[in-house]
Amino acid sequence: MKALALIAIPAGLLAQVGFDRIANSGAEPHNWLTYGGNQQSWRYSRLDQIHTGNVKNLALEWVYQMKTLEKVETTPLVVDGVMYFTEPPNAAVAVDAATGRRYWTYRRRLPDKINVCCGQVNRGMAILGDALFLGTVDSYLVALDRRTGNVLWETEVAGRRTGHSVTAAPLVVKDKVVVGIAGGEYGIRGFLDAYDARTGKRVWRFWTVPGPGEKGHESWSGDAWKTGGGPTWVTGSYDPSTNLVYWGTGNPSPDWNGDVRKGDNLYTSSVVALDADSGKLKWHFQFTPHDLHDWDAVQVPVLVDAEFRGRKRKLMFWANRNAFYYVLDRESGEFLLGKPFIKQTWAEGLDDKGRPILRPNSAPTREGTLVYPGVQGGTNWYSPSYSPLTGLFYFSVWDYASLYYTGDAPYVAGNRFLGSVPAGVPNEPGRGLVKALDPLTGETKWEFPLLTTPQSGILSTAGNVVFGGNNEGQFFALDARTGKELWHGNTGGVIAAGPVTYMVEGRQMVTIAAGNSLFTFALR
Amino acid sequence: MKALALIAIPAGLLAQVGFDRIANSGAEPHNWLTYGGNQQSWRYSRLDQIHTGNVKNLALEWVYQMKTLEKVETTPLVVDGVMYFTEPPNAAVAVDAATGRRYWTYRRRLPDKINVCCGQVNRGMAILGDALFLGTVDSYLVALDRRTGNVLWETEVAGRRTGHSVTAAPLVVKDKVVVGIAGGEYGIRGFLDAYDARTGKRVWRFWTVPGPGEKGHESWSGDAWKTGGGPTWVTGSYDPSTNLVYWGTGNPSPDWNGDVRKGDNLYTSSVVALDADSGKLKWHFQFTPHDLHDWDAVQVPVLVDAEFRGRKRKLMFWANRNAFYYVLDRESGEFLLGKPFIKQTWAEGLDDKGRPILRPNSAPTREGTLVYPGVQGGTNWYSPSYSPLTGLFYFSVWDYASLYYTGDAPYVAGNRFLGSVPAGVPNEPGRGLVKALDPLTGETKWEFPLLTTPQSGILSTAGNVVFGGNNEGQFFALDARTGKELWHGNTGGVIAAGPVTYMVEGRQMVTIAAGNSLFTFALR
Repeated sequence: MKALALIAIPAGLLAQVGFDRIANSGAEPHNWLTYGGNQQSWRYSRLDQIHTGNVKNLALEWVYQMKTLEKVETTPLVVDGVMYFTEPPNAAVAVDAATGRRYWTYRRRLPDKINVCCGQVNRGMAILGDALFLGTVDSYLVALDRRTGNVLWETEVAGRRTGHSVTAAPLVVKDKVVVGIAGGEYGIRGFLDAYDARTGKRVWRFWTVPGPGEKGHESWSGDAWKTGGGPTWVTGSYDPSTNLVYWGTGNPSPDWNGDVRKGDNLYTSSVVALDADSGKLKWHFQFTPHDLHDWDAVQVPVLVDAEFRGRKRKLMFWANRNAFYYVLDRESGEFLLGKPFIKQTWAEGLDDKGRPILRPNSAPTREGTLVYPGVQGGTNWYSPSYSPLTGLFYFSVWDYASLYYTGDAPYVAGNRFLGSVPAGVPNEPGRGLVKALDPLTGETKWEFPLLTTPQSGILSTAGNVVFGGNNEGQFFALDARTGKELWHGNTGGVIAAGPVTYMVEGRQMVTIAAGNSLFTFALR
Repeated sequence: MKALALIAIPAGLLAQVGFDRIANSGAEPHNWLTYGGNQQSWRYSRLDQIHTGNVKNLALEWVYQMKTLEKVETTPLVVDGVMYFTEPPNAAVAVDAATGRRYWTYRRRLPDKINVCCGQVNRGMAILGDALFLGTVDSYLVALDRRTGNVLWETEVAGRRTGHSVTAAPLVVKDKVVVGIAGGEYGIRGFLDAYDARTGKRVWRFWTVPGPGEKGHESWSGDAWKTGGGPTWVTGSYDPSTNLVYWGTGNPSPDWNGDVRKGDNLYTSSVVALDADSGKLKWHFQFTPHDLHDWDAVQVPVLVDAEFRGRKRKLMFWANRNAFYYVLDRESGEFLLGKPFIKQTWAEGLDDKGRPILRPNSAPTREGTLVYPGVQGGTNWYSPSYSPLTGLFYFSVWDYASLYYTGDAPYVAGNRFLGSVPAGVPNEPGRGLVKALDPLTGETKWEFPLLTTPQSGILSTAGNVVFGGNNEGQFFALDARTGKELWHGNTGGVIAAGPVTYMVEGRQMVTIAAGNSLFTFALR
């Protein structure tokens, strides 16, 4: 499909984005080159023009109103004054990052029927060279010419009648594009793919649910692995020092009936570490073995090198949907620390391997079992942030419970494969917060309370400002050290995306998707 | 249909809006009680907290994102801290005017097929007592309880299969609700109705196309009057001193084929002055007799008492779609002044009764005739503003031409009844401007140029600020005396509505609909 180009992007703004630039994104803080902000997925910016002392002067700079009523979960990319973002379901847009003026739009013609659990969402794109990479709800990976929005190539990732879809932003790793798949509510067999960035040809596939003869297959009863879930619907991280791709995996299918899939159900609700060149599994860590609560481990792996208990280590920080915060050694997968970050009633604690010690009566039943955290977890796919300046880890938290039911789960391809549907606890909507943890201890440093359960990613900056948002449409700035609110703007739309910051024409800007618009703020 | 009430509107904010308040709206400039701002339709506010010296400090206060992709043309009402507005096609919303937080929404279930020429638009509501009045695209007048959004009554204004719809904000006149009808592209026979505000019962109807035996009927050939057009799709004004309702009428039908409707085609493309109690015609003035260019006279009558050529008179100012600016005596309908305000090529001028002296070769042809102004006119339905402080008249202007064609026009009820469709002039998109006229002479005082042809209403204030907007989403503030731009905000959406201003919690706010959102700005 040809994109509608309105005005040409000035050639001077189109320097190639080689992988060296992505690997050294810290050297160009005026840009936002990847979903996670840097390879370590810190969502931290070295920009400090906006800081705790002046953030109160933030004012609206521009708005981009999307032509959609779907939920907007996009994280924009910003490259040398041009912003690229997705508009649900699968449009891609390039605008002048200074003004929001549109250069081009790519719109994809989609089949009438798309099987997605939770809206025709998209979380963003990746860039390499002159190409943007977009996953689609009809399960394609599309490469677009970033100058025009024209299609360079497109590749089918999976079938379209089986509940597969691509909603995550792809991750560029050297010359490859790594792409996850969604469909954990449809009984897909999950995988993670890598494609050649130039040709769109698939280079490797890692099945998150091992087949017969593969390690981990024994963790599935009978044929359950064939419809075992384990989707990969949030972007992972890449560490050049280990040459590993780290990626979270989603729930086993069916979500709330474990009887038909006895065993640990590897590698669902886990993080997997894969060799970037071959896609081979190096190690895994399963946060929630035999998950019965839909606690996808689809959080973004945050990679930090730090001294941990007296020893300099390559770490991974992970606040999981199951309400525990984890520290892992990302070279070996060794479990180092695990601690609840919010009320949970399903585990007595973790053993010395990090395996949860289950509490009795926490499994879903036909009558309903009340468990903390609720089905959306203590946190979910909303990106956390790590600030090397404060040394703190920031994320959006849900404090609530669900009533978990179980039930029959007949599998029909393309239909939902759930076993039941959880319910809210009457008159207990729960509450939300932004939390700052000491990531080396899991201790809470501060909390910023919210009226309702948030869906916003977090951004931290060298100005010691933490940005986040709430369901009431407020985009807020907190003091990264104390959690004190310094400013907020009212966008009138639910915030279910991650903020980014960049600099253009000498001015630092902050952008957030809210409702069906993109809002950009700057100092006035 | 029951409205969804989220939170109760505090009782203290619900003082009755008696007609005395509407008649004396100047005494409560913190509110915006009617479509036109006051009974004279000045869209002028006595608020001056925001003024030429500080308007540069305007900042976004809140946004309300509508759940629609239809064009938004609404003018909100503000009453004692509560804002009421319409969301296309026919939702009504009440929000806290300080924060944009929603109190309730009324949504109307509409038939699948609605015949409207130009989008399922709505321009706003009227208020009286505890009732809001809403016209619908399926041609009902609905009264809503402003405390809850619940329906008090609804009345059928016209059939739904004939191209009738109600898009204009109603006008409250004493105990009545005056309602216009749209459908000039469907060959309706136009009318203006008045309904009892308490019961919804129709009190009077004035047919804008007179039937057999009625004065003006002789201006129609054959049966053309039956499908003669003359809709009334923009709100008029009421003058208690004359007890007359002034209302503009739209094009004769079919739009671009005059052969099937020979004669002047009264009272199309005219202003009519009707007795407010009986609906009887007191006088009329036809701006464009036998209109062949779709130049609806659907501008808002601006009523001003002033000395005109040495005599104190009750005047009406009117910048017409046909590109002439008029001054009329609103007691008698006497033509006092007429002057082009932008390039026009269809008339040599006006005679001493204000009747245009046609230029040869300006009528539509089968081959196409290039005429200034184009089919959208020199201005259109976008409300003008009159400032008593500067004595100037402000409005959005189009400077462009169309190619006018004619063709056959078979009438089929519910189908378009046009005769042809005009075309743009290749490579001449035209330009736009905001213009300030001396309304007593028609002389231009200043012009503010715009890149494209604007659709924004104008607001002027006692702070000597003129607010307007453009298609590029910029909401701007001009110096009312000079036209100098003092500020703009970027909303990311086409501005096709009128701004309003009000005061809440001691702060002056300015609200404009842009794209699919409502934006409110205040000083920071």
